Amino acid sequence: MEDVVDKKWGFEGNKELSSASVSVRGVLNKLVENIDVNNPHDQRPVITLARTDPSVFPCFRTTSSAVDAVADAVRSFQFNGYPPTVGVASAKKAISEHLSRDLSYKLSPEDVYLTVGCTQAIEIITSVLARPGANILLPRPGYPQYEARAAFDHLEVRHFDLLPGKAWEVDLDSIEQLADDNTVAMVIINPGNPCGNVFTRQHLEKVAETARKLGIFVISDEVYGGQAFGKNPFVPMGEFGSVVPVITLGSLSKQWVVPGWRLGWIVTCDPNGVLKTSGFLDCLKSYLDVTSDPPTFLQGALPQIFEKTRGEFFSKILDTLREAASVCYGKVEEIPCLTCPHKPEGAMTVMVKLNLSLLEGISDDMDFCLKLAKEEAVTVLPGFVVGLKNWLRITFAIDPSSLDDALRRIKAFNLRHAKKLIKD
Amino acid sequence: MEDVVDKKWGFEGNKELSSASVSVRGVLNKLVENIDVNNPHDQRPVITLARTDPSVFPCFRTTSSAVDAVADAVRSFQFNGYPPTVGVASAKKAISEHLSRDLSYKLSPEDVYLTVGCTQAIEIITSVLARPGANILLPRPGYPQYEARAAFDHLEVRHFDLLPGKAWEVDLDSIEQLADDNTVAMVIINPGNPCGNVFTRQHLEKVAETARKLGIFVISDEVYGGQAFGKNPFVPMGEFGSVVPVITLGSLSKQWVVPGWRLGWIVTCDPNGVLKTSGFLDCLKSYLDVTSDPPTFLQGALPQIFEKTRGEFFSKILDTLREAASVCYGKVEEIPCLTCPHKPEGAMTVMVKLNLSLLEGISDDMDFCLKLAKEEAVTVLPGFVVGLKNWLRITFAIDPSSLDDALRRIKAFNLRHAKKLIKD
Repeated sequence: MEDVVDKKWGFEGNKELSSASVSVRGVLNKLVENIDVNNPHDQRPVITLARTDPSVFPCFRTTSSAVDAVADAVRSFQFNGYPPTVGVASAKKAISEHLSRDLSYKLSPEDVYLTVGCTQAIEIITSVLARPGANILLPRPGYPQYEARAAFDHLEVRHFDLLPGKAWEVDLDSIEQLADDNTVAMVIINPGNPCGNVFTRQHLEKVAETARKLGIFVISDEVYGGQAFGKNPFVPMGEFGSVVPVITLGSLSKQWVVPGWRLGWIVTCDPNGVLKTSGFLDCLKSYLDVTSDPPTFLQGALPQIFEKTRGEFFSKILDTLREAASVCYGKVEEIPCLTCPHKPEGAMTVMVKLNLSLLEGISDDMDFCLKLAKEEAVTVLPGFVVGLKNWLRITFAIDPSSLDDALRRIKAFNLRHAKKLIKD
Repeated sequence: MEDVVDKKWGFEGNKELSSASVSVRGVLNKLVENIDVNNPHDQRPVITLARTDPSVFPCFRTTSSAVDAVADAVRSFQFNGYPPTVGVASAKKAISEHLSRDLSYKLSPEDVYLTVGCTQAIEIITSVLARPGANILLPRPGYPQYEARAAFDHLEVRHFDLLPGKAWEVDLDSIEQLADDNTVAMVIINPGNPCGNVFTRQHLEKVAETARKLGIFVISDEVYGGQAFGKNPFVPMGEFGSVVPVITLGSLSKQWVVPGWRLGWIVTCDPNGVLKTSGFLDCLKSYLDVTSDPPTFLQGALPQIFEKTRGEFFSKILDTLREAASVCYGKVEEIPCLTCPHKPEGAMTVMVKLNLSLLEGISDDMDFCLKLAKEEAVTVLPGFVVGLKNWLRITFAIDPSSLDDALRRIKAFNLRHAKKLIKD
């Protein structure tokens, strides 16, 4: 019999996958592999500023109320069966009420669809929007999950800039230049990942008017919804749902600091019913028929999670984030090769510019991050992953003493690799 | 300002979705909508034989050990963060040990990838196998999630028959005729959904040899793994992993009767490492980088679930299924318009042939199911959904008294719609 290893098999790989679309996870895995865990001279703990997951730190521990709600739901034996395609009714109601508190009108439970975290929400949205020839406008810098899923769905991506000099606002002029008859939607992320900015009400209104003029839907990624700790309050894009149809994406992950629970939602903010008449809702439901869902008992726990979580929990998390953002901004200012154009005022990450001309033997942002991981056991995300080559995305949502430690190590790394000045 | 409703929007729908690929969920939703819930003359409970979800019945209630394991995991606060791309290490180890018990060699934890139920496992596999021009061989009748996801991934589907006269074995001759250089894999479902059959070891070996000859991987959907209650014991396809690379799909859903937990896995059974050298594993990992995962705490609960679930739980479920299958087979024989070619010996569903010539005013299987839902408040899945027009898929995994009630109603429906015989 022919040898099974040498044999030619029909499988030849999926080019979209083997061409290795850039993902936070993929790059992070490479950085972690580069950490020299067997170095007997380096016993320091590894510090991760590359991935946004503060759940391991005691100061970011989720509330017992949420944990109890999940345990109660699974122990009730009431939520072991398949959930309905569009989600468990009580969960939809709870989310619509929770989100309506920040809106000047009331969402209905029918506006809500449950997803396996915001990750699946993105997956669903790009699949529903895709058709041959269509394009979508994405922010640069942004969140690469959008690019990865759009590539997979053969949905063309066009990037508009966020302007570092203008608090990372959307470059509205470029939106008008990029859009054409095949543009189906634009994405904003507010509070901002990766920039840590929070859009003003005035700016969101301009975004809505621009999108309406161009005939494109607005996808508002509000996974950090409510997490504004600077001068701009968080305003949900749904406020402008009567100007332009808004599809809001959200999840428990960030506000409850439970990214591993993978419980998210898609919410349609569209009082005029455009998403129904245009066929969007039918496509969405058809897609939900052929994809997986979040566990039924986790959906069933949602009403109790919303009801029992106290305001103090959120304020404590916000206070910790505010302090961490300040530490981060202050310490970055002391590192010569880094510049931060805008002090973070929301979410959990910030973009800093890397000045390579001050460094010796560092070729680019990825090289910087790989060497930093190896020499200092600190991971930071290279900016190219989020669309800005030779920038860095730093996650400040870790406990303040580890953050301080990590930034000291980055400073030491900078000094060690600093270009020697030639003295006259 | 132009009216927001009349305005032309860039969104035009996704044809793959608006052409409404057939899904169990989609058809089931239509049947349920047809039930006349407001009929004051029909107060009978709705009985669902269309969807395989016995979790609501006390006799199919899951074990407290599993529920406790999940509650313990979430209460530990150790599993709130993102899981690793490939799954939580302890969960991978637990699954590899659990599945190795039925194999003549040992799986490694690295062979295991966690998924959001078997639904996402199918989604991942079709995405990884797809490339322009490629095709996959699927069983007819089968499980339409494969067809739906393949269509979405532009992976051509070719159907081979399962032979009702031969205990629903694979028509191996047709496999050889269907396959060409662009065939990447074939799918088997064992124990069988929708047929309720269990393949013999001899037949699985022939499947492996055929696939090896053709150079195609075998995807073995073993979501009903272990649920054989007839004369053929369940043999995992992984037994033939050294003949042909086998990718096994499984989940907690059926054996633990918790379909709503959405915890599944992909396991590579490939001692020769073909899946690695061919690039399949790299593609799989790249895809996992850009999709969602099952909740970390649910993965974290797996070792305790496997360890604490007692054999008595599984035997009790098997006994109940065996009894239900017998009731179903016996009662179906009493219904003139239905024929069951093979008594179910595994899984939770059976295929029965509909003889329309004995009925008056019923045009096809969908018409039969819609009218049955309306008149008798019983749902049964029309066979066209699983690839066999004018057959029915009946789920027998419900409590025996409801099953008996449902089949009596189907018999009454048959008699009411029976073609009047013209007497000489």
